[in-house]
Amino acid sequence: MVRVRADQNDAMILLYTDFGYDGPYVGQMKSVLHRLAPDAPIIDVMHDAPVWNPRAAAYLLAALARASEAGDVWLCVVDPGVGGPRLPVVLECGDVSFVGPDNGLFEPLHRRIPDARLMRIDWRPDHLSATFHGRDLFAPVAAMIARGEAVPGDPLEMSETRPGIEWPDDLAEVIYVDAYGNLMTGIAGSTLDDGRKLRVGSETLAYARTFSGVQEGVLFWHRNSSGLVEIAANQARAVDLLNVKPGAVVEFI
Amino acid sequence: MVRVRADQNDAMILLYTDFGYDGPYVGQMKSVLHRLAPDAPIIDVMHDAPVWNPRAAAYLLAALARASEAGDVWLCVVDPGVGGPRLPVVLECGDVSFVGPDNGLFEPLHRRIPDARLMRIDWRPDHLSATFHGRDLFAPVAAMIARGEAVPGDPLEMSETRPGIEWPDDLAEVIYVDAYGNLMTGIAGSTLDDGRKLRVGSETLAYARTFSGVQEGVLFWHRNSSGLVEIAANQARAVDLLNVKPGAVVEFI
Amino acid sequence: MVRVRADQNDAMILLYTDFGYDGPYVGQMKSVLHRLAPDAPIIDVMHDAPVWNPRAAAYLLAALARASEAGDVWLCVVDPGVGGPRLPVVLECGDVSFVGPDNGLFEPLHRRIPDARLMRIDWRPDHLSATFHGRDLFAPVAAMIARGEAVPGDPLEMSETRPGIEWPDDLAEVIYVDAYGNLMTGIAGSTLDDGRKLRVGSETLAYARTFSGVQEGVLFWHRNSSGLVEIAANQARAVDLLNVKPGAVVEFI
Repeated sequence: MVRVRADQNDAMILLYTDFGYDGPYVGQMKSVLHRLAPDAPIIDVMHDAPVWNPRAAAYLLAALARASEAGDVWLCVVDPGVGGPRLPVVLECGDVSFVGPDNGLFEPLHRRIPDARLMRIDWRPDHLSATFHGRDLFAPVAAMIARGEAVPGDPLEMSETRPGIEWPDDLAEVIYVDAYGNLMTGIAGSTLDDGRKLRVGSETLAYARTFSGVQEGVLFWHRNSSGLVEIAANQARAVDLLNVKPGAVVEFI
Repeated sequence: MVRVRADQNDAMILLYTDFGYDGPYVGQMKSVLHRLAPDAPIIDVMHDAPVWNPRAAAYLLAALARASEAGDVWLCVVDPGVGGPRLPVVLECGDVSFVGPDNGLFEPLHRRIPDARLMRIDWRPDHLSATFHGRDLFAPVAAMIARGEAVPGDPLEMSETRPGIEWPDDLAEVIYVDAYGNLMTGIAGSTLDDGRKLRVGSETLAYARTFSGVQEGVLFWHRNSSGLVEIAANQARAVDLLNVKPGAVVEFI
Repeated sequence: MVRVRADQNDAMILLYTDFGYDGPYVGQMKSVLHRLAPDAPIIDVMHDAPVWNPRAAAYLLAALARASEAGDVWLCVVDPGVGGPRLPVVLECGDVSFVGPDNGLFEPLHRRIPDARLMRIDWRPDHLSATFHGRDLFAPVAAMIARGEAVPGDPLEMSETRPGIEWPDDLAEVIYVDAYGNLMTGIAGSTLDDGRKLRVGSETLAYARTFSGVQEGVLFWHRNSSGLVEIAANQARAVDLLNVKPGAVVEFI
């Protein structure tokens, strides 16, 4: 059995998906959550996680989840293999739970957090659609955890559908471009010296602490508000200045 | 008088509009709802319903509304005729209410649900803007219903502003393209045999139960998570592969 | 000290930012608000305020804020100078508070509302990121006000970082284009005669009360649902018909 949370009053459900706000998907999932766990506030953390890209989404999630507090239940759906053999899982990290598909989305969290436990979800709804497990399976399970109920399941020795790729501590790639055109990388910035230069494409960028620390239109790297190394420009779109895409390799020199 | 709901505690207000998330419109409507019915949770089901197209929006709404539960109040605004002669109405379907303009948006629901009653709303606010009845009229009425209060009004024998168009049980058209590029049709998929082929544009597509049931980039049709026939492709945008638009005719052969 | 609100129960927190819904920013800010003021409902009024343009955003905010009620706390973040010298402030307007950067965003409100008081925020969080004061500073302060707590700070004689630009009562420019392609101006429409013509680019437009008051595709001006003069067209995108951009000058003749 998946561990029962002692104090259900503190539960907050945080949504992290690649659904986008368009379409009925987020709303249908929230309807289910609210009907099953009416007391748990629901926070839309992000619905434009890297689409169909659980690996990039995983590194971004690991950064965002550092702001978690006891009782938080993360409902995470970046799930191109929905309806296929990948397992539904809960990653338990002390008092914080992550519910979603076992496709690598929780791999960096699993590696970084001591005593994190990966659990296979054995519960199934009466009706499970072929293409929307976020609504039919993961949301009810997140609601169960938020209510402090046990979720039927057993520990997984290791992620069974782990992709055959490397999982470095830091992913030295552009993993996400935000609405301002800033490019987030999968590199945790905390141990890097400010004097280091970042190379991306044909550019070599210096560090600045903040946007207004450089002239308008100048590119720089900084540690963003989620702790990741980010490429940005003052009042300009770094992504347009650089012409690089998610997946582009970055290097510190 | 519009029927009073017995149990106001279960009321949930579900929003279905073509406003988009941009601009102040959704937020202004939610401010009104929250001030007038502070205990009713508000769920954004969808704010990109087919713009200026109550007919396509009506078939999509009828599919989404199948997940309703007792006490739900749907606030539905796809209203190109706002400020003109179209009536404000409530469609009462047992314990579920739909509030919005009488422009065809509730026609498929009205036809499908036994004992559904269409009511003209006679209530008017002190100040009614010319262009935003969603905020000024429909939201306060939805809040009244959620609170269990009576809404002044009388039954309508039939929809008075019903467009002069056919209302088939299934609308064999593309009615909506979602953020993943999947094309929803207005055809309820439940009675269709899996062996049927779907023809759209110059393509003929076979059925698959789920995205991962076909190769990457392959087009197929399936019953989507709201029960509608949908044209999709595995990890690719069906809309780009097909080059068709909302309104395109589909045919089963 | 910033004034303590007497009645904390009525507090509603209204969000007005240029973050967009994409990315984690809105969600991270709401997580903080909910953890610190769990009883205050949070309304997303708008997250596509004019990007990096506090002046246009200020005139739009002043129009939207006319619908405020006692206890409302507006959390306003259009803050291209984040991390630079601009001060964090609260503008107190009777029982309504506006929290955000002192970069002109509250200037029209300050000028229009009698007895409005501008207060410098002296409180700082234990950890203040260089680029996300919305989450780290303004959200906690908004939560304090919503909870009825005092915010350390002193009155400002005048806005210290006021840009060296004119602040007319009405800003005769296009300040925002909505999702339907309507163009909002910074002109309050209440005192204008219906017989006036509006000139924008090479076009001269007549007044209509509502969209359905003109033929499809015809341009007109009207007073929008927030009280601003707006250029629109019936079931067509005015912005595409006119080919003008935010900042374009309008003139009444």
